[in-house]
Amino acid sequence: MTGTVESRLKDLGIELPKPSAPAANYIPYTVVGSTVFVSGQVCVWNGDIMCRGRLGEDVSTEDGYQAARVCGLNLISQVREACGGDLERVVRVAKLGGFVNSAADFTDQPEVINGASDLMVEVFGDAGKHARFAVGAPSLPRGVAVEVDGIFEIR
Amino acid sequence: MTGTVESRLKDLGIELPKPSAPAANYIPYTVVGSTVFVSGQVCVWNGDIMCRGRLGEDVSTEDGYQAARVCGLNLISQVREACGGDLERVVRVAKLGGFVNSAADFTDQPEVINGASDLMVEVFGDAGKHARFAVGAPSLPRGVAVEVDGIFEIR
Amino acid sequence: MTGTVESRLKDLGIELPKPSAPAANYIPYTVVGSTVFVSGQVCVWNGDIMCRGRLGEDVSTEDGYQAARVCGLNLISQVREACGGDLERVVRVAKLGGFVNSAADFTDQPEVINGASDLMVEVFGDAGKHARFAVGAPSLPRGVAVEVDGIFEIR
Repeated sequence: MTGTVESRLKDLGIELPKPSAPAANYIPYTVVGSTVFVSGQVCVWNGDIMCRGRLGEDVSTEDGYQAARVCGLNLISQVREACGGDLERVVRVAKLGGFVNSAADFTDQPEVINGASDLMVEVFGDAGKHARFAVGAPSLPRGVAVEVDGIFEIR
Repeated sequence: MTGTVESRLKDLGIELPKPSAPAANYIPYTVVGSTVFVSGQVCVWNGDIMCRGRLGEDVSTEDGYQAARVCGLNLISQVREACGGDLERVVRVAKLGGFVNSAADFTDQPEVINGASDLMVEVFGDAGKHARFAVGAPSLPRGVAVEVDGIFEIR
Repeated sequence: MTGTVESRLKDLGIELPKPSAPAANYIPYTVVGSTVFVSGQVCVWNGDIMCRGRLGEDVSTEDGYQAARVCGLNLISQVREACGGDLERVVRVAKLGGFVNSAADFTDQPEVINGASDLMVEVFGDAGKHARFAVGAPSLPRGVAVEVDGIFEIR
């Protein structure tokens, strides 16, 4: 992994969605010192919901994994904005918080959120390794399958 | 918005509840450097629960919005304590975490948590704009409709 | 409380579990400056699940309290790793995030998460007092009863 983050994105064929605009009086991210708090990102691509439904009911773990990956792509897109377009400024992914729309008997939240976790390491290498939680939620905004927020350290 | 935060509260007719006392071995807030972590605040006013129940079942989105606003008032009340009574020391609202007591088919968590988000901007202006997540929970402490925690930057 | 943290652990007869190894591309903790973010810890002891099930259904509040205590022991075990084995470097427990596997009518999440909160003060004294949230989740990884994550300040 000697390339820059942007070249790695290109080599891996990873495209980022457009960063969503602020929806109300909350905004996609705040910067406090060298810490970036990114709002919970859902599995939408440029405004279209990619995966709606509930794990253990009508969404498979594999589809949930892909949904979590889309959440992760949105997180990275927001962090790029926070860095003025320069992802080289990301020092590390500090923490992800993963919420999985879950039926009462679904217990594979970690396998779902791995979709976001694996992406971070693909894109940022060792700097992408992060702390996280992965829990169930009975319902999520607009019926999405997955929501993930994040805390990043930047320079 | 040239007035101070306290005069803005007065102009807007916003009254803050008394900050709740620590309930056990956890406390309402901790201060780490210039970061204040505020415990999850529920929709109580000086000890009385203002809104009990579940969105999508027996609580309307509008009542949920008001409940989230009350959570936000409690957050501000705790931050004022953390600042030794001086809300001018708040640099920005960094992040809110919103949990909405939700039936399985309720998907308007963002509209509910806007009650807290809108309040932050009313009170702090641009410094009140924050990152956040808004998710469902199957049940919350004492049956409240909404719980919101917060991270604030102070000087 | 004049003893060191380690001697306090010994005096109280508190044994820590082995810190779990990273499971995937997420890791048990990250360190950003003087802040340690610890991943959500579940109620396992050296790999064995200590308490599976749902509060308000098949797990009592007392058993949930003990499960939360086990989560807390795992948090401390991870923080010890983050401190290179020296718990004296813990300045304070900043925040715990408590998720309780909850039936829809279970509302004693605070009483459950007190198991982790009480432990922090037993072990760290006043430095163990922390901000927190305690919320319900409809399901958790591997069917565990409780998951708790944490943010710690170290020197």
